[in-house]
Amino acid sequence: MTDISRISVVTSAEDIAALARQLRVDSIRMSTGAGSGHPTSSLSAADLMAVLLARHMRVDWADSRHGGNDHLIFSKGHASPLLYAMFKAAGVVTDDELMTRYRRVGSPWMGHPTPALPWVDVATGSLGQGLPVGVGIALAGQYLERADYHVWVLCGDSEMAEGSMWEALDKAGHFGLGNLTAIVDVNELGMRGPTALGWDLERYAARVHAFGCRPVMVDGHDIESINAALRDARGDRLPTVVLARTVKGRGVPELEDRNGWHGKPLPSDMAGRAIADLGGQSELRIQPNLPAPAPTATHFAAHIRPPEYRVGESASTRSAYGQALAALGADPRVVVVDAEVGNSTHAELFEATRPERYFDVFTAEQQMIAAAVGFSVRGYVPFAATFAAFLTRAHDFIRMAAISAANIRLVGSHAGVEVGPDGSSQMALEDLAMMRSVHGSTVLYPSDANSAARLTEAMHALPGISYLRTTRGAYPVLYDAHEVFPIPGSKVVCASDRDDVTLIGAGVTVHNCIAAAQLLTGSGVGARVLDAYSIKPLDVAGIATAVEATAGRVVLVEDHHPEGGLGEAVSTALADAGATVQLAHLAVRNMPTSGQADVLMREAGISPVHIANAATRLLGTDTQLTGG
Amino acid sequence: MTDISRISVVTSAEDIAALARQLRVDSIRMSTGAGSGHPTSSLSAADLMAVLLARHMRVDWADSRHGGNDHLIFSKGHASPLLYAMFKAAGVVTDDELMTRYRRVGSPWMGHPTPALPWVDVATGSLGQGLPVGVGIALAGQYLERADYHVWVLCGDSEMAEGSMWEALDKAGHFGLGNLTAIVDVNELGMRGPTALGWDLERYAARVHAFGCRPVMVDGHDIESINAALRDARGDRLPTVVLARTVKGRGVPELEDRNGWHGKPLPSDMAGRAIADLGGQSELRIQPNLPAPAPTATHFAAHIRPPEYRVGESASTRSAYGQALAALGADPRVVVVDAEVGNSTHAELFEATRPERYFDVFTAEQQMIAAAVGFSVRGYVPFAATFAAFLTRAHDFIRMAAISAANIRLVGSHAGVEVGPDGSSQMALEDLAMMRSVHGSTVLYPSDANSAARLTEAMHALPGISYLRTTRGAYPVLYDAHEVFPIPGSKVVCASDRDDVTLIGAGVTVHNCIAAAQLLTGSGVGARVLDAYSIKPLDVAGIATAVEATAGRVVLVEDHHPEGGLGEAVSTALADAGATVQLAHLAVRNMPTSGQADVLMREAGISPVHIANAATRLLGTDTQLTGG
Repeated sequence: MTDISRISVVTSAEDIAALARQLRVDSIRMSTGAGSGHPTSSLSAADLMAVLLARHMRVDWADSRHGGNDHLIFSKGHASPLLYAMFKAAGVVTDDELMTRYRRVGSPWMGHPTPALPWVDVATGSLGQGLPVGVGIALAGQYLERADYHVWVLCGDSEMAEGSMWEALDKAGHFGLGNLTAIVDVNELGMRGPTALGWDLERYAARVHAFGCRPVMVDGHDIESINAALRDARGDRLPTVVLARTVKGRGVPELEDRNGWHGKPLPSDMAGRAIADLGGQSELRIQPNLPAPAPTATHFAAHIRPPEYRVGESASTRSAYGQALAALGADPRVVVVDAEVGNSTHAELFEATRPERYFDVFTAEQQMIAAAVGFSVRGYVPFAATFAAFLTRAHDFIRMAAISAANIRLVGSHAGVEVGPDGSSQMALEDLAMMRSVHGSTVLYPSDANSAARLTEAMHALPGISYLRTTRGAYPVLYDAHEVFPIPGSKVVCASDRDDVTLIGAGVTVHNCIAAAQLLTGSGVGARVLDAYSIKPLDVAGIATAVEATAGRVVLVEDHHPEGGLGEAVSTALADAGATVQLAHLAVRNMPTSGQADVLMREAGISPVHIANAATRLLGTDTQLTGG
Repeated sequence: MTDISRISVVTSAEDIAALARQLRVDSIRMSTGAGSGHPTSSLSAADLMAVLLARHMRVDWADSRHGGNDHLIFSKGHASPLLYAMFKAAGVVTDDELMTRYRRVGSPWMGHPTPALPWVDVATGSLGQGLPVGVGIALAGQYLERADYHVWVLCGDSEMAEGSMWEALDKAGHFGLGNLTAIVDVNELGMRGPTALGWDLERYAARVHAFGCRPVMVDGHDIESINAALRDARGDRLPTVVLARTVKGRGVPELEDRNGWHGKPLPSDMAGRAIADLGGQSELRIQPNLPAPAPTATHFAAHIRPPEYRVGESASTRSAYGQALAALGADPRVVVVDAEVGNSTHAELFEATRPERYFDVFTAEQQMIAAAVGFSVRGYVPFAATFAAFLTRAHDFIRMAAISAANIRLVGSHAGVEVGPDGSSQMALEDLAMMRSVHGSTVLYPSDANSAARLTEAMHALPGISYLRTTRGAYPVLYDAHEVFPIPGSKVVCASDRDDVTLIGAGVTVHNCIAAAQLLTGSGVGARVLDAYSIKPLDVAGIATAVEATAGRVVLVEDHHPEGGLGEAVSTALADAGATVQLAHLAVRNMPTSGQADVLMREAGISPVHIANAATRLLGTDTQLTGG
């Protein structure tokens, strides 16, 4: 319990220095108490954060959801003790809570910040991600809301080696994000020794300037210099990068600028000495700088007229995605992020009618995902699309978005060997494994234009990370425009009263399954075809029913590597359900070359003939078909 | 067939201009013939490549394996027609071959280059990867071989938006790679329109200079300027970036600088006009500039003395990895790449004795993988390690490394909730899904120090992409130091004559399975424990034998999300093998917080008690255990 009588309020410059000492003391106490953590990385940035908190952050601390609040992101998430000490000084957490729950099981006061705390926008801890997300929030503030809130991002110097930081600064400069300030804590010591650039602020500044942002160099322990830099940052029309020369471990002489202390709490005797030298425990509180009123929330009322396709007409799922996305543009919360491929993913159809909510970050997939996360932080409904293969570029960002509890909708076009002549570099054969393994994700893979449109519409309302896999080529529309596609769910595309085998596909392989069923009919074999468009969650009941009706015989075919995709999902789910099955799993096991899609599917063993032959093998007949 | 009598040899400056016309003509012919491809992106760089090929590349074209050959990487891999046209001018492929096989199924002349062609080092086509790999090759040339070969990388301007390009230039500057030249084809048009920086060469130059490299601006269609820039590049002690102002579609007036023509072949009538305007088909050949003698190959003779651990002593698998790696340093081909975490992954133990073969690229995981691929190109045996979670940052690079047929050894430390207090951002729970889905990969997950050391030694000889997952904490050594760990393989850690259930784990969960077996013994249940250290390839026979011996009852437990990891691998393999199983799959299905490792494993439901209870449920008994 905090003794209220001991609280005093920060007003003068001297008080800010005292606040910085308190942030240091609390960082040391927290990490020593927990037995782990990063006190030295917190100490270097304590003066920067004391000035920011006391003088420049405009936050209604009583209302973490206030839409006008400034945003603060610790891109160097390992300095969590410092962040949490700031929250104490803001009066939103007691000293007792921090000292007893930091890094404990079930506590929101985790080793690296996550939105389990209401004042934290996004999870950090994988370096080089906080600033890119800050760019997304700043884009929302400047381009969509024209709001007064400012985005402050505390960065480490080690993470300036991540290319993603330069994608972020490139975009901050490109979009002229004057509402964004990065504060780089240049303490020149990384996890295992000196950083590449050390304390050479001039070299950092040259890079920042060349990337279109405004560098400001300060002594990161000089309160007045910091104050001037942050004051100017808020007023500038360019994004500011405050390059602060600091000392790791600052305030504890026996640790200052000493290698070997990264991520190590002080032993209790050393902590005791350090705390005493810093003036002991204190209960300073800042006087909050209240934010401007929140930007007016946009209410969604418009009617969305979805695209519809006639059964049998030829259309690609990627074009259906683009058309459905354009229709969803009627909701003013819908925002689209592109990575210079909108003409191929068909996201560009949205741009045609909603250019003000279409952001092309150019060929920077990590920044594309980070921008989507930033829009999610501000309550928008972001969609982001690129070639499915290139989403792997942003895997770490997608993983972190799940920890951030972000609501983002991802679309990967040009999946599998179906891509054809462009060759293996463009073929996503790992994306289903990647997206299925993301915590709480939804993974969808429509086979025709109507299901693609309906699933795109469904994603609009889905929480968490959702993923739609689309196909390059045009294929016949299979479903009526009014067909409903629940998640989870699956569709029996064709069946008879007495089927011998179930053929399961998703996306392009549904068409191969249909062709295989026709081949099998010619051989007197009854095959039902199941479209497993909802890959995660999987329609276990629907699949089990189909499989039982065919005496457990299943051919499962996917345009993906055999690991981690639909095949393993179905196989595992049926085993869990206690079903007895004979499952033939056709997947891409070769290294594909260039070529026409149908030929490449044959080469990979996922063509109609391969499916039909796998079915006849399951049936113990030896009628092997040949040809296409 | 090429008519030999028509061949003429490039000698004069006029001949180079004619060669450039030929490269353009052949690029047009190839893509129009194939019906797809990127002619306009080839046309912009034709003059640059004509000068490079005729005057500066030192290659023994008759011997693609000549160790002294210059390296040429098309980072803009979509300009493959231009690259292949260069190969024709070098005399290593006939016109007929190119015109009939480009982008055809089974042909090595794919839409984007791959090492299926002997003159191609690495696969490109995912933008932003060729230059980072070039950095790796240049590191080998300058630091390990002190060789004369030069590394030339043709880059697109769109890909300069990828952060990975700046990781590469940062490292090129840091290591002073004077043997590396990037040639940026600034044609100012991306896939869907103008690039962010357009033709503003000055802004590119400022960035390049700030990143420690030497920018040179040229007119990319002026033969003499290009010639001077490339001549100087070879002699400079700094890495050079030639920023070439070019025109997309150059040489075909109706296409020049016109948007909407990216990735589109010319219709045959337009192609006919363009080819005629360019002087028609020709058969110019360059006079090869022969390379310096190959650097002396290093022969491996030294004896490796592996680390050994006593059964029962406490050691982490990551420390065993580091010690085994240090021992492997006796092989002069072994090279280690770090991303500023060598003190945590224990790769640093290698640095202590082999600093000259230890490259820290700082916090730049994409560059870490790319450097390893570069070392693989030069025949080295690279190991690269970071926290397993952060390998997701380089997923696209790992995927492309497989297409490149690179031989690289990856290690991910700090896997799963076992990481503990640092929290979810640091916990790899998706890495097994990612690494299993990589084509041809090997995935290993040792449970103790001796198996970790033996598997590290095994990786030394493994081709392709191999992955070792290590654990943060120290656990008892289970195996004798002389135990052999075949790949695929598994170990029955404990068993009796009459076991009721098989407990399958890998890595840290093997220890939980052993503890669970002891709990079960106390309840009168016989449990055998299987260590599935070889996750891919999986020891299907060994696992099936164990499972059969326990009447199909299996509890499988993994410190990973349920998708794409060991559980789905085993479940699918047993189903494929026709085994009838009752499998309980314990995996991390929650979002972990910070906390102690054993408590987090309990929270995730993968603790010894959870395993034992799952086993008793399978047995139909209702003896539920409680506690740790």
